[in-house]
Amino acid sequence: MLISNTSSSLIDTLRQRRQRLAQIIDFPAVLWSGSRNPRNFAANVYPFRASSHFLYFAGLNLTNAAIRLEAGKLELFMDDPHPSSALWHGEMPKREEIAQIIGADSAKPISELEFLVADAATIPAQDAATWTKQSQLLNRWVLPQNPPQGIDLELAKAVVSLRLTHDEGALAELRKAAAVSVEAHKAGMSATMQAKREAEIRGAMEGVIIAHNMTTSYNSIVTVHGEVLHNEHYHHSLQPGDLLLADVGAETETGWAADITRTWPVFGKFSSTQRDIYDIVLAAHDACIAKIRPGVEYGEIHLLAATVIAEGLVNLGILQGNAEDLVSRDIHALFFPHGIGHLLGLDVHDMEDLGDLAGYEEGRNRSDRFGLSYLRLNRPLRPGMLVTIEPGFYQVPAILNNPQNRSTFQYTVNWDRLAEFADVRGIRIEDDVLVTAEGSEVLTAALPNDADTIEQLINSQ
Amino acid sequence: MLISNTSSSLIDTLRQRRQRLAQIIDFPAVLWSGSRNPRNFAANVYPFRASSHFLYFAGLNLTNAAIRLEAGKLELFMDDPHPSSALWHGEMPKREEIAQIIGADSAKPISELEFLVADAATIPAQDAATWTKQSQLLNRWVLPQNPPQGIDLELAKAVVSLRLTHDEGALAELRKAAAVSVEAHKAGMSATMQAKREAEIRGAMEGVIIAHNMTTSYNSIVTVHGEVLHNEHYHHSLQPGDLLLADVGAETETGWAADITRTWPVFGKFSSTQRDIYDIVLAAHDACIAKIRPGVEYGEIHLLAATVIAEGLVNLGILQGNAEDLVSRDIHALFFPHGIGHLLGLDVHDMEDLGDLAGYEEGRNRSDRFGLSYLRLNRPLRPGMLVTIEPGFYQVPAILNNPQNRSTFQYTVNWDRLAEFADVRGIRIEDDVLVTAEGSEVLTAALPNDADTIEQLINSQ
Repeated sequence: MLISNTSSSLIDTLRQRRQRLAQIIDFPAVLWSGSRNPRNFAANVYPFRASSHFLYFAGLNLTNAAIRLEAGKLELFMDDPHPSSALWHGEMPKREEIAQIIGADSAKPISELEFLVADAATIPAQDAATWTKQSQLLNRWVLPQNPPQGIDLELAKAVVSLRLTHDEGALAELRKAAAVSVEAHKAGMSATMQAKREAEIRGAMEGVIIAHNMTTSYNSIVTVHGEVLHNEHYHHSLQPGDLLLADVGAETETGWAADITRTWPVFGKFSSTQRDIYDIVLAAHDACIAKIRPGVEYGEIHLLAATVIAEGLVNLGILQGNAEDLVSRDIHALFFPHGIGHLLGLDVHDMEDLGDLAGYEEGRNRSDRFGLSYLRLNRPLRPGMLVTIEPGFYQVPAILNNPQNRSTFQYTVNWDRLAEFADVRGIRIEDDVLVTAEGSEVLTAALPNDADTIEQLINSQ
Repeated sequence: MLISNTSSSLIDTLRQRRQRLAQIIDFPAVLWSGSRNPRNFAANVYPFRASSHFLYFAGLNLTNAAIRLEAGKLELFMDDPHPSSALWHGEMPKREEIAQIIGADSAKPISELEFLVADAATIPAQDAATWTKQSQLLNRWVLPQNPPQGIDLELAKAVVSLRLTHDEGALAELRKAAAVSVEAHKAGMSATMQAKREAEIRGAMEGVIIAHNMTTSYNSIVTVHGEVLHNEHYHHSLQPGDLLLADVGAETETGWAADITRTWPVFGKFSSTQRDIYDIVLAAHDACIAKIRPGVEYGEIHLLAATVIAEGLVNLGILQGNAEDLVSRDIHALFFPHGIGHLLGLDVHDMEDLGDLAGYEEGRNRSDRFGLSYLRLNRPLRPGMLVTIEPGFYQVPAILNNPQNRSTFQYTVNWDRLAEFADVRGIRIEDDVLVTAEGSEVLTAALPNDADTIEQLINSQ
């Protein structure tokens, strides 16, 4: 539990959030923070991270706590530490002190919660100990993998409507996460020329995040095999000609996330083929950001990225045909097989624990088109939304060596020409973009993304 | 899953371990690796770490796998990745490849396990999804918090007897963990003069561990409040006169741990009072290590540390009386309220998931004496055992401000004299010591622990 950064503005922020909630629902909501998960034995736990919905309304990363929200009131439920724990854990803030810090209207032992959950809605925490307790107390199954129903669904929709656009309190944290993530990426670039393995660059980057008393908001991807989209191995050595893809983001003490990807040459200079593709991905990235403003459909932004990439590949002679036509046939997805981005907030894929409730406008469903099925966000943009823009180009063996793809696209892809770009396994450029009334603001803009400046940063060490 | 460091010696090591197991038990054992724990949503998981018992016999940090051991044979149970996962996770090693790497006698899908668990003993994994599955398949409760019974108890005792002393394969990994931890502490010392907050020193230390593709073996303690024994906050600023206590250890890719503590002055120089106490703790540390050899009771080592500390405090005028007498009355425990150390291996408190089965010689139980109740290891030492030696001195407000203690020890503690040492909140010096046939070997000896050299290391940056 961390309370190093608190202020009266936290109290105001939390009050406004629950008052807005009370304007949408007229029944009580109880949210649990969750319990620590043991690692290899009970006393050796994984680092704790409270449920995002709890953090949104309670503001602090408390273990084994719950809050009850009704009509704009906040009740805190948690037990005071056992007196003997002071030896091991120091003088912990008492329930009453925490209640003051977050502006709770009352504070009670957790045992009293059972008398106050009747008719309350909830959202399941992620750990089994907590969702078991939630299910017992509420006398119905409350499971993370089950879609919410009844008042739980009403609560989930209300929370989504609040969390979809960020208030000033959230933005202050999100800017902090972005700034530290920018620093981490710069440290990664600076460490590259001395590094022999991926892990060394990861160490430099995560060291910066830890030094700011933050954590990573997801398991870092730091790899010379960027074509493996969720690569979580870090043991490869850095070889001449390799590009390193680093997808690393920080999370503040109260849980707000950033999410940045950069791709850079491990020996300090892009090859001409790498730079050709890099510039296409960057063009897609820039075109998408230029298009962001309220009212624009995020799905259109995705298709814009696809079109710019297809066009670039046509210009390089890798694809043959007209860009719009190629995109309508999902041919861009051979090289760009994921969505252009997602919501960002307390979660790196914000509110993904609620399925597509947050990402998809009511009445919309995932497409089964190869080029669209991975799209995580399908809504018109609104001021205060924070989204990632992360186009990429990958040569995924599982896709490109698929005999059916080879035969279907025999004449659409110039396979011989493509072979000349073998030194481009994976490139992604990702920034965090806030939708504003006027257009957009890139929260991660302090980190350069053009090839020349990146080369300079790497070589400046 | 990591398989960057494997060799034929792994196969031999694992074979010898299961053959030794087969000499002790004559029934099959099934061990599960465990499942990933979701963090804030299903796809965003905590870093995975397999069960230590699984790692001991299977050698690799595999998720959702199980092994069956019988008569020296190893059967691996795991599912091949779904073909579509290659896009996201790359070409994963198949079950058959992993079976080859670890020298399994056969390899089957996990679904076949249910036909092969009859009469098998097990040890619960730590995550609820896995121990639920274990309980279902074995048709009995297999819970981490329940003491093992029947054949599970026999298996647990057999595993303890193997894991109590380390084979060459284990020692090679333990030495790697120790070496990287030493580097991490040196980096922490080097970062100190530039650092403004605890978190910055932690970042420098953990950055080194991550750079070696390792993890921390427990949540680091990096604090100017060393008197809080399990302090996991890192937000305090570094103030003139503060001592920083850093208890940080690395864990190798296959799960073997180190555990080192050093305490150093954040402005590069111990005060004379700090140095006086530091030298007492170091004297206790050195005396304990000098005494380690096969046959010596670990409890005696603990009492030796207590006696050296009591003697030192008498010499400083903080305690009054005779050292042995003070220790017999547990007065040292006012300042040294924990045990001198513990077993170290795959777990930082090795096999603590089995309660005191590993730490306590059969027939022995925890003492209820204040000065002895926290002793985690109570056995005669044997060659191949790895233990920590970690004496400390702390001024814990909850202990020293306790009115009963103030009155009971009114004339034993010179409270006025003690007040002169107010700038010593917490000091601990911890090394990892292997019991050898001749005596002992300090695996972490490359990290200096004398006050002069530590001052030099801090000031050399």
